[in-house]
Amino acid sequence: MPTISKKGQLMPQSPIRKLVPYAEEAIKKGKTIYYLNIGQPDIKTPKIALDAVKIHSLDILAYTRSEGSEDYRKKIANYYRKNDIQVNHDDIIVTTGGSEALLFAFGSIMDMDDEIIIPEPFYANYNGFSTASGVNIVPVISKIEDNFALPPIEEFEKLITPKTKAILICNPGNPTGYLYSKEEIQKLAAIVKKHDLFLIADEVYREFAYDGNTHYSIMQEKGLEDYAIMIDSVSKRYSMCGARIGCLVSKNKQVIQTVLKFAQARLSPPTLAQIASEAALDTPQSYFDDVIEEYVERRNILIDELSKIEGVKVAKPKGAFYCIAELPVKNSDDFAQWLLEHFDVNKETVMVAPAGGFYSTPGVGLNQIRIAYVLNKNSLIKSVNIIKEALKVYKD
Amino acid sequence: MPTISKKGQLMPQSPIRKLVPYAEEAIKKGKTIYYLNIGQPDIKTPKIALDAVKIHSLDILAYTRSEGSEDYRKKIANYYRKNDIQVNHDDIIVTTGGSEALLFAFGSIMDMDDEIIIPEPFYANYNGFSTASGVNIVPVISKIEDNFALPPIEEFEKLITPKTKAILICNPGNPTGYLYSKEEIQKLAAIVKKHDLFLIADEVYREFAYDGNTHYSIMQEKGLEDYAIMIDSVSKRYSMCGARIGCLVSKNKQVIQTVLKFAQARLSPPTLAQIASEAALDTPQSYFDDVIEEYVERRNILIDELSKIEGVKVAKPKGAFYCIAELPVKNSDDFAQWLLEHFDVNKETVMVAPAGGFYSTPGVGLNQIRIAYVLNKNSLIKSVNIIKEALKVYKD
Ligand SMILES: Cc1ncc(COP(=O)(O)O)c(C=O)c1O
Ligand SMILES: Cc1ncc(COP(=O)(O)O)c(C=O)c1O
Repeated sequence: MPTISKKGQLMPQSPIRKLVPYAEEAIKKGKTIYYLNIGQPDIKTPKIALDAVKIHSLDILAYTRSEGSEDYRKKIANYYRKNDIQVNHDDIIVTTGGSEALLFAFGSIMDMDDEIIIPEPFYANYNGFSTASGVNIVPVISKIEDNFALPPIEEFEKLITPKTKAILICNPGNPTGYLYSKEEIQKLAAIVKKHDLFLIADEVYREFAYDGNTHYSIMQEKGLEDYAIMIDSVSKRYSMCGARIGCLVSKNKQVIQTVLKFAQARLSPPTLAQIASEAALDTPQSYFDDVIEEYVERRNILIDELSKIEGVKVAKPKGAFYCIAELPVKNSDDFAQWLLEHFDVNKETVMVAPAGGFYSTPGVGLNQIRIAYVLNKNSLIKSVNIIKEALKVYKD
Repeated sequence: MPTISKKGQLMPQSPIRKLVPYAEEAIKKGKTIYYLNIGQPDIKTPKIALDAVKIHSLDILAYTRSEGSEDYRKKIANYYRKNDIQVNHDDIIVTTGGSEALLFAFGSIMDMDDEIIIPEPFYANYNGFSTASGVNIVPVISKIEDNFALPPIEEFEKLITPKTKAILICNPGNPTGYLYSKEEIQKLAAIVKKHDLFLIADEVYREFAYDGNTHYSIMQEKGLEDYAIMIDSVSKRYSMCGARIGCLVSKNKQVIQTVLKFAQARLSPPTLAQIASEAALDTPQSYFDDVIEEYVERRNILIDELSKIEGVKVAKPKGAFYCIAELPVKNSDDFAQWLLEHFDVNKETVMVAPAGGFYSTPGVGLNQIRIAYVLNKNSLIKSVNIIKEALKVYKD
């Protein structure tokens, strides 16, 4: 029997997958589960986007251009300009989700064994994209005590080697909810320029900035044009994760030309989803205002309730819809499994994401979990109560 | 300025892209172009598929499972069983086009510098997927004189090294239109078993088999379960290239589990397109009968007309909708460009794909072009006439 590749063996499993069989078992036993572990919001997709595909008049569902339809790219550029980001449609390549944009970015700037520095905890699938691309992630630890702010820039500098090709940040952060300040972005800008590295910013949560903070994009930073690669997506912004539309944005022409070659090989991003995504750009501001208000309320409830539990430490998120909580347990993998297997409050339990999967330094974050506040307030209150009651009886 | 990757530099440009500026120039000069160079059929998408997305009742466009929705996978398995291919839904991973299935297959079975043997001429994007995966294509030449039949199996055997991990065939072939016989598949089966290699078959044109020939899938071959990986797509079958839905099929559990990890990293295939593709499975047989009849008529006209031109040699395709023609020119790149720049018949000209891009051995196929018969009969007749007239006056 022929064998699979080393790369294939190394490809990480999603950190949540391990828990799925236990969740299935719990459901069989009649338990209800609150899913705090997922990045799929319960927020409705703007009607304007869903309707656009209902009224399509296509008779051939054809490929679009590999870089995305020109109309759509022009409208995206317009959206960015409204957000104080000066780009043209030819600085944009439409991709199949932010996921593909990340994969194209990795492939375009890194070869086998090259290194990319990423503050951890980070979005777990960066591991998968790195493994698929044969590159190594070099983590720099950000701390719950600092609300997961940017680690001191010297910590980055220490890690730079001749193999380092890029720094990747997620802003606002999944799983941290941290929103980088303009000053932090400028520190990163200085270091990538000094060492001739790319700065990739995953800004798929750019719209979700709370408490009057404004998001500062790497694309707004003057002098960073040759270094900056932005990753974006419609998935979270319009709650249309299933569209699979994202984009890669850069002023660096060589980057765009190279990414385009990867895009051409796979022919085209999805056509129906581009129609929906183009329409989504006309979503009224009131939609976002409502969504942000909803997330802020949820966050406040979640953080308040979690903070009341003895022994729980939690970082207050300024953006996105995740937070990391430190629990008085040794191993949150075991705890998360135990919640599904052995615990319930009136036949209800929760599924959380153990945070170990968001760190690449072994042994770090083992007492942390990530909670996505993608459920309504009532469910969130019940969920936190379940965690509270569980911690009273749980023994490591 | 930071530099792009070696891999990114090596990524090939689509062989047709070079011609695009000349086509644009020709249009500006008022010429009409018949596009014989593309794989985007003019055939209508089944109404049942297009309507399915019009009547959707989603209010959140959510991710599906990474492996594709279970309902859809069950229906695909059913389609295969009707086609005498015994598979279950858990042998299937839904992908974003056949393109992604190929990329996942390459990543799952090959590491950097591994080798894959492919009969040439082959689908040009295999080059892109290989480069992106860091693997090397080892070509084995198939000849226009033999209608592009399978090269003698000894030719494959000669090329096998310790780095060889797989043989890839396209059946029926793009760009050759060749349909492999059961005996040819069995020869390939024997050699992959003998040398412990995977056999990947790109069967995206499986439905397009002409002249009473039936398609023999590698999945039908007994004893090949551990070795066979099939690539499929809705793009051509239902003329829905823009859906971006394909799948990878294998009975080898390790392969499926590994591919699933790649699929999880990118979260989900497109949701709306899965709805359309699931509906497409209910397309009535009459649709295919009509489409096949249309393609056969086009092929006959095309081959007849081409054969009448002095100095032109053409292989008769038994499947798909492409054919390779050898022209009395030195370099078909130059000829294709000249057609756009300097030639027209009553303000009409043609765009063809120079075949050099389908070969990986340098210097081979330079006097060949690929013609896709994705235009109606009238346009095809006019197109061949343009080529005929052009050859009368063209000087290398
Ligand atoms: C930080 C981050 N980046 C990228 C993605 C990829 O999203 P998509 O491919 O749906 O655009 C996600 C999805 O959860 C994410 O959280
Ligand atoms: C031989 C072959 N394989 C795979 C593909 C990829 O098609 P898709 O990604 O649209 O399924 C094509 C498209 O032209 C093709 O001709």
